[in-house]
Amino acid sequence: MKTSIATVCLSGTLEEKMQACAAAGFDGIEIFESDLVVSPSSPAEIRALADRLGLTLDLYQPFRDLEGVSDELFAKNLQRLEAKFQLMQELGMDLILVPSNAGTATVSDDTIIADQLRQAAQLAQRYDMRIAYEALAWGRYVNTYWHSWQLVQAADHPNLGVCLDSFHIFSRADDPSRIPEIPAEKIYFVQLADAQDLGMDLLPWSRHHRVFPGEGSFDMVEFMTYLTEAGYTGPLSLEIFNDVFRETDTNITAADGLRSLRWIQQGARGRITPDNPVREHLTAMPKIEPVEVIDHLEISTDSPDECGALLGALGFKFIGQHRRKSVQLFVAGGVKVVLSPNVRGGTYISSVALQVTDSNDALARARALGAPVVSRPVTADEVRLPGVYGPGGMQLFFVDATSAGWPIEFGADLDQLAASTNTIRLDHLNVPEARDHFGASVLFTLATLRLTALEGQDVASPRGLVHSQVLESPEGGIRWIFNQVPRIYTNRSGEPVRYPGHIALAVSDLEQRAATAIDAGLAVLPIPTNYYVDLQARFGLDDETVERWQSLGILYDRNADGEFLHLYSETIGGLFIELVQRVGSYRDYGPGNAAVRLAAQEQHEQQDRVFSR
Amino acid sequence: MKTSIATVCLSGTLEEKMQACAAAGFDGIEIFESDLVVSPSSPAEIRALADRLGLTLDLYQPFRDLEGVSDELFAKNLQRLEAKFQLMQELGMDLILVPSNAGTATVSDDTIIADQLRQAAQLAQRYDMRIAYEALAWGRYVNTYWHSWQLVQAADHPNLGVCLDSFHIFSRADDPSRIPEIPAEKIYFVQLADAQDLGMDLLPWSRHHRVFPGEGSFDMVEFMTYLTEAGYTGPLSLEIFNDVFRETDTNITAADGLRSLRWIQQGARGRITPDNPVREHLTAMPKIEPVEVIDHLEISTDSPDECGALLGALGFKFIGQHRRKSVQLFVAGGVKVVLSPNVRGGTYISSVALQVTDSNDALARARALGAPVVSRPVTADEVRLPGVYGPGGMQLFFVDATSAGWPIEFGADLDQLAASTNTIRLDHLNVPEARDHFGASVLFTLATLRLTALEGQDVASPRGLVHSQVLESPEGGIRWIFNQVPRIYTNRSGEPVRYPGHIALAVSDLEQRAATAIDAGLAVLPIPTNYYVDLQARFGLDDETVERWQSLGILYDRNADGEFLHLYSETIGGLFIELVQRVGSYRDYGPGNAAVRLAAQEQHEQQDRVFSR
Repeated sequence: MKTSIATVCLSGTLEEKMQACAAAGFDGIEIFESDLVVSPSSPAEIRALADRLGLTLDLYQPFRDLEGVSDELFAKNLQRLEAKFQLMQELGMDLILVPSNAGTATVSDDTIIADQLRQAAQLAQRYDMRIAYEALAWGRYVNTYWHSWQLVQAADHPNLGVCLDSFHIFSRADDPSRIPEIPAEKIYFVQLADAQDLGMDLLPWSRHHRVFPGEGSFDMVEFMTYLTEAGYTGPLSLEIFNDVFRETDTNITAADGLRSLRWIQQGARGRITPDNPVREHLTAMPKIEPVEVIDHLEISTDSPDECGALLGALGFKFIGQHRRKSVQLFVAGGVKVVLSPNVRGGTYISSVALQVTDSNDALARARALGAPVVSRPVTADEVRLPGVYGPGGMQLFFVDATSAGWPIEFGADLDQLAASTNTIRLDHLNVPEARDHFGASVLFTLATLRLTALEGQDVASPRGLVHSQVLESPEGGIRWIFNQVPRIYTNRSGEPVRYPGHIALAVSDLEQRAATAIDAGLAVLPIPTNYYVDLQARFGLDDETVERWQSLGILYDRNADGEFLHLYSETIGGLFIELVQRVGSYRDYGPGNAAVRLAAQEQHEQQDRVFSR
Repeated sequence: MKTSIATVCLSGTLEEKMQACAAAGFDGIEIFESDLVVSPSSPAEIRALADRLGLTLDLYQPFRDLEGVSDELFAKNLQRLEAKFQLMQELGMDLILVPSNAGTATVSDDTIIADQLRQAAQLAQRYDMRIAYEALAWGRYVNTYWHSWQLVQAADHPNLGVCLDSFHIFSRADDPSRIPEIPAEKIYFVQLADAQDLGMDLLPWSRHHRVFPGEGSFDMVEFMTYLTEAGYTGPLSLEIFNDVFRETDTNITAADGLRSLRWIQQGARGRITPDNPVREHLTAMPKIEPVEVIDHLEISTDSPDECGALLGALGFKFIGQHRRKSVQLFVAGGVKVVLSPNVRGGTYISSVALQVTDSNDALARARALGAPVVSRPVTADEVRLPGVYGPGGMQLFFVDATSAGWPIEFGADLDQLAASTNTIRLDHLNVPEARDHFGASVLFTLATLRLTALEGQDVASPRGLVHSQVLESPEGGIRWIFNQVPRIYTNRSGEPVRYPGHIALAVSDLEQRAATAIDAGLAVLPIPTNYYVDLQARFGLDDETVERWQSLGILYDRNADGEFLHLYSETIGGLFIELVQRVGSYRDYGPGNAAVRLAAQEQHEQQDRVFSR
């Protein structure tokens, strides 16, 4: 379907917003009145700019407080409306949004409201304009889409239809299942907005905390499915009021928005039977089989010796240097880690390579989600892994059967690798993201790899709350956590600190592994004694166990599903490694322990600074 | 009363928090358990550090989900509790907070709950400890302070009392008026937190959006008054969960917190009759008469010529240079402006001087609110104006009868100044503040000058939402607006932009004044044509009026109270001047017009950059 976005979603001037929408690939925009009012460009200039950029001007909005008023006020409102129609003529537009009256309404009589809507539509007809009437969730008398549709039916005018907005429907916990009863030609416009369930009053929730489809907790795909079943063919438009978006780079937000419209259409395709012809109105994304295995990770580092020593202590074997590049391969069990030099400084996960059935399909899907392709030069006889950049700069590569032999370039014996008896495996990844990129990274990753988002959590750190979001594959083979880094992450002297990400490796014998690794040089993050005192009080553990764990730096949790033991290595640059042991069917990550870890890392960092003076 | 603060209010490590609390002047702290758990310091070390810093350890918290459970679970809970008593012995503490059970409660029978509380109190008695039982607003069965008090009465044990928390009472719109019925000796502890009415679910509201007393919309002074009338004598403790505080410099937050405790006690003193002896338990602040007049403003500038020209065009007279310093005085009507050189670059309001009855009282009040004194060197025969720094760095000076002659130092003739026929006067000030300082600056300014806060408003700018807060004096003589600046305020090239503040001057003949000023060289901020097209549609104005206003850059608003005309000068550095005319009893500031202004300034700034290439 044709895609559109309201200019109010974006930061910047109207002209900057239009440039960004065109660059992101939107087909059209909604002109939000206040963006036009503050613009120095004349309506003719805006129209010409839109033409040059290839953007259609889909909707002028909002025209507030039209209906449900006294005759006297309504006459004034029609004058206001006529002035807008004249303005829209200059803009070359033909559709205006009339939200239900939330301010001046005094008449609750449906007959009168419908009559006023009909008069407005008659005026619109004289100007070749159309009116899309939308039920605001907080409209005084009209606040459900069904009521707005009843009024449009009663008004019965060819220039009057409804606008459906997912926020106004879901925020009231209204039932969208009657949407298919509305004739498609009477749905003049559709606005999409998702939101997290914050339990807030409707108005502040709507004005500040909307997010792109897929980033919130509404069933946006259900909404999209009903719309498609109604026969609606577009446009699909984003109308997101969000305080962070208003402060974020215009181009980033626009690209994130378009991705969400591709995601939602793909989701609806999955719910509509293939023989239903309306399905073809939904723009398809290349489909991929579920992804369950991370093939390998790449760590970009300015400390390759420290990283190699850490991996070695944990039981990784150094396989070899790449035959051409100064890049090293380490393997333990099913976990492959590539170390590559980082000239800009720091140590972090720079790429994640995933095992896929068809790497071309995976690449096409990622590109359909707006990801730029990674161009990594290889020689003719080397494996070329297709890959993309995620919104936060992380690279994703796709490995299929034809490219699985890439370790040969490091001198690896593939049979020997496959025969490894080491039972270590990847438990989860933890990737830090800045606030500006967080929502986009989560949506891009889950949409590209078909992951599911669990409920988000907040973790207290000495420098602010960290919002943590777990993504999981259907079989649990991939667990990918994004951490939203506090705004100010500095040490005591005000120097910026790289908030660390980590790789968690699962073992079945943590205490033994830890003892061996420590003997082999593993530096474990020291955990304070107070933690163990509290642990003992919480779980009634015996002294000996707690002392043993403390000596190894092991943290612990227990719930109805089982037990969880884990430890953290010291941080190298912006990365550390966690070892975990899951007992029973424990699926969590040790809630509470992440806060202990963040404080211990902060403490450790401060000590480091003292020692290095 | 003795002051205290929960460590969870602050960013940093436990040790950093304790240092900051001591430096701010708190008497004690509440130890939030997770802060202790993540600390490498032993309980004995924390105790010794508190001793050295002169801080008492007032409350250990929280001990969750104790009561209203099965016998089996309760037995385990008593074991957990005993471990905490042992820990508290090491810390040298004797009071623990038990919030009502919100997680594991299965027993709603008050007799059983009271019995379990009694058993816990018996255990506490063996350790010389006391338990403060608090009704959480979202407690499963116990969620009102009166219910918690009934249970404490029923348990009837000398080591059991209640903890009252303003958030848990006001967030449920509960009535605090029965607090005085609770015997003072049974109120073991009091926690204070304010909040804006966000209409959110209780738990996320409480966990993320509490603010210091006076920064929210609860009637905190009423709460404090009831507490005092109950005979409560302390401690008063702050327990604020706030995402911004968690990211803000620890010392700043601690100082802001202590100020709020001084403010609230002063407020309660105002509501208790002087002959009531409990009033003496409230720590007094030096009282001042209401402040209604701004004596003069100081503009710090690296562009004194441009500033002087702007003032001159607006009808200000240059009075003279200071006899010793390179500082200039300009006067128009009742408005005095001092220009002082700014070697660090930029132009902004650096100080505001207020006419007060007694400058010593005013200084003492500001100091009691934690403000550092400004030390401005003067020679023996010059007027020394006492002054302080506000939380955001703005200086406040106090001028009384004995110091009112300071313009003589600029060669002014005081009689001549008084005889001026210019009717220009100060309408309002607008001061930008960073997010970290916003709440503190608002509270400090209103508490120091006895101003009242109106309801806050959001204004859309091209770079994000600006939150705007108006403070007014009782007679309306002072109107002081703080604007919270968007996080990222940069121009298109990513260079930081100083978000401008402004001085608004009131006149009775704006069109005439504007024409004269433009002739005299005033550069008015250009307002887009689209604004006037919209204005005409909104208010049904005639063409001629609108054209005249557009030619002068005049913006307009009208409401039931009257009319408002205003215009903006171009910005110099970080400052511009607004001219306003209020017609009838119009009291607002032209809602909507600020967004037009911010966009026009952004546009202008971008053009400036092009021209200056």
